[in-house]
Amino acid sequence: MKSTSKYLREDLLKLSPYKPAKEPCQIKLNSNESPYDLPEDLKMRIWERVKKESFNCYYDPSCDEVRQALAGYLGIEPDKIFVGSGADEIIYDIVLAFAGPGREVIIPVPAFPSYETFSIISGARVINIPLLLEKYATGWKWSLDVLKIKKYFKKDTPQVMFICYPNNPTGDYFEEEDIIELIDGFNGIVAIDEAYYEFGGRTFINRLSDYPNLVIIRTFSKVFSLAGLRIGYAVANEALIEEFYKVKPPYNVSLFSQIAAVEVLKNMDWVEKVRRKIISARENLKTKLEGIPGITVYPSSANFFLCRFEISRDYVYQKLLEKGILTKKPEGEGVENTLRFSVGTPKQNEVLIRSLKEILKGS
Amino acid sequence: MKSTSKYLREDLLKLSPYKPAKEPCQIKLNSNESPYDLPEDLKMRIWERVKKESFNCYYDPSCDEVRQALAGYLGIEPDKIFVGSGADEIIYDIVLAFAGPGREVIIPVPAFPSYETFSIISGARVINIPLLLEKYATGWKWSLDVLKIKKYFKKDTPQVMFICYPNNPTGDYFEEEDIIELIDGFNGIVAIDEAYYEFGGRTFINRLSDYPNLVIIRTFSKVFSLAGLRIGYAVANEALIEEFYKVKPPYNVSLFSQIAAVEVLKNMDWVEKVRRKIISARENLKTKLEGIPGITVYPSSANFFLCRFEISRDYVYQKLLEKGILTKKPEGEGVENTLRFSVGTPKQNEVLIRSLKEILKGS
Repeated sequence: MKSTSKYLREDLLKLSPYKPAKEPCQIKLNSNESPYDLPEDLKMRIWERVKKESFNCYYDPSCDEVRQALAGYLGIEPDKIFVGSGADEIIYDIVLAFAGPGREVIIPVPAFPSYETFSIISGARVINIPLLLEKYATGWKWSLDVLKIKKYFKKDTPQVMFICYPNNPTGDYFEEEDIIELIDGFNGIVAIDEAYYEFGGRTFINRLSDYPNLVIIRTFSKVFSLAGLRIGYAVANEALIEEFYKVKPPYNVSLFSQIAAVEVLKNMDWVEKVRRKIISARENLKTKLEGIPGITVYPSSANFFLCRFEISRDYVYQKLLEKGILTKKPEGEGVENTLRFSVGTPKQNEVLIRSLKEILKGS
Repeated sequence: MKSTSKYLREDLLKLSPYKPAKEPCQIKLNSNESPYDLPEDLKMRIWERVKKESFNCYYDPSCDEVRQALAGYLGIEPDKIFVGSGADEIIYDIVLAFAGPGREVIIPVPAFPSYETFSIISGARVINIPLLLEKYATGWKWSLDVLKIKKYFKKDTPQVMFICYPNNPTGDYFEEEDIIELIDGFNGIVAIDEAYYEFGGRTFINRLSDYPNLVIIRTFSKVFSLAGLRIGYAVANEALIEEFYKVKPPYNVSLFSQIAAVEVLKNMDWVEKVRRKIISARENLKTKLEGIPGITVYPSSANFFLCRFEISRDYVYQKLLEKGILTKKPEGEGVENTLRFSVGTPKQNEVLIRSLKEILKGS
C-alpha cells in the first residue's frame, strides 16, 4: 500500500486509526451499553412518525423538538440545550470551538479517550494529569489531583478541562468540592461529562447559573438505550450554547434519531424501569465480584465496573472471550492490569461471575 | 445574555452560527434536495430490517455493509471507500486530517460554503480564488483560474484543495484538463466534490490509480433522496482512506442510516427513475427559464440552476417566498444578484416559472 502519510498533519502521525475489534461474542460488555433494547411498541411508535417524514429533505438542523422534550426532562430552557450526533460530536464541538491551535486541554486521566484524541485533532496541546488512587476504610477511591491540576492553570490564555462524572473507566464520582475548586480557579471551559448521570444521580446542571464557563455533556447512548442512533447533548448557558452552532456540521442529527429521542423521552416509565434494573443488577454484581479472590473491584456509580486482577488481564480477557464474553482493556497510566465491563442483564452477569470464578480458580 | 466569547477561539470570532432560516413554504427549492421521497414499500423494507436491530448497541463503526454495497455500485474495492455522516463529515475529516494549523486550503469560489468554514475551524488558512466567468458563442461558462491558483501552490508544506464538480452554486463542470493540470502540480490532497455526480455523469473516480492524493466526495443526499439521514462517502486509495479513521468520530453513522443506504442501493431501478425525471425536468426548466426576459441562466449539470437577475434578487427572493417558494441567495464574489434554486417536480417547476414571469413582469 502506497503511503499518503506525507500529507497527514505531522502532529497526527501518532494517532491510531479507530477500528475497534469486531470480536464475535454472545455477551457484549465492552462498551457500557444498556443491555435492554427498546420494546417493540416503542419502536413502532417511532416508525409511525418517521415513515411520514420526507427522507429526501434535510431535517431540523437545530433539533427543536428534541430540545423541547429535553427541556421538560431536565427542567431547563431549550435555549440552554444543544443536540449533537452522540456525545462524541459534543466533545468534538467543544474542542474545536474552545481549544484548537495554541491552546491547552487539561484531562485528569484515565478518562474517556475521545477527550485526548479530539483535542489533539483540534490542534491543542493535551495535559494529562493522573488521578490519585488511595485506599480508605470504606474502600478504594480515585480522586482528582487538585493541587497538581491547578499548577497548569493559565490566566492569560483560555484553556479547556474535561471532567468525567462519574469517571469512565474508573467508575465513580470525584468529590464535588474538588471540582468546584477547579472551576472556581479556571480561565476557560470546564466540560463535565455526565454520560452516566442516570446511574448515579449527581449533576452539575444546577450550578450552571453560577458558572458561564460550564458545559454539561449528556447522551442517549446509556440509560436511554439508543447507542445505535447517535444522539448526545450539551447543557450550558445560552451564550455558550450559541458557540456550538459555529462549529457544528450543518445537519448533524438524522431525522430518525431526532424522532427516536423524542419518543423515548415520552416513555420515561420505561427508561426509569431500565435505570432501576441496571442499578439493581450493578449492586448485585458488585457483591458477587467482591466475593471472588484475586480481583480488586472499584466502586461504581455508573453501569460498569473497573476491576484489577492479580493475574494477567490479557489472560483473563482472552479466557472470557473464549467463553463468549467481550470486555474492555482500558489504556493509560493507573489502569494497568484492569478490565472494564458493563453491567449486563442479571443472566449475563451470572455468566460473567461464573466465568471469572472458573478462570481465576484455574489460573 | 452574558457573553462567553472570551473563551471562543479568537480565529473563530468571525464565524456566524449556523442557524438556517426556517421559512414556511410550500415549495422548498433552497437546498438542492431530490423532490422525490422514497416509495412506501422501500421505506417498509428499511424498517423491516431496522426493527430487528438492537437500538441499545453501537452499530458498525466502519459501515462494512454500506461499503460493500457501494463497491458494487461504483465498481471499486470496499477498502477504497469511507462512509461518513453526510458529505459534511467527509469534508470535516479531510480538513482535520490534512489541513489544520499552519497549513493552507485552496478553494476556487464561489463554492459550497462548508469547505471554507470547516477549513477555518481546522485552524488552516483559506485561500479563495475567484472563478473566471466568460461568455462564449455557446453560452456562459465558469472556469478555474488555473494560472492564478497555481501561483499559490507550495512545494514545501502540503496543502488541501477543494474542487466542486459540478460546482455548487454555479451549476456546471469545470474543464477536465484544467483540473488535471492542477492535480499534477499539487503537493497535497485534492478533494473533488461529486455530490451532484449522478445528474451529469462525469467523475474522477477512474483517475484514482494515477493520483494517490486524490479523494472523491459523494453523498446519498441528492439523487439517492436520503438528505434527512446524513450519509456521505469518500472514495480514494486505501492509504488515504486509512487516514479518515484517525479523525472520524468513533461511531459516526447511525444504524438506521446505514441500513437505509444499503436498501436504497438495492433499489437502483427507483434511483435511476428519479435521476431521469430530475434531468428531464432540468432540461425543461432550462428552456422555460431562458424564455423569461431579465434572467441570465447559467448552464447546469446538477439538479439546480444559478440565475442572475437584472432587478434586485432580494426583491425576487421575497416575492417568490410570498408565493410559497423558498430559494437560496448564494454568497460571495461573482454571484452578486443571483438566486439558486433546485430542480423540483415538473409541477413545482411550473409554479416557479409562472411565479417568476409574474414577478419580473410586475417589476
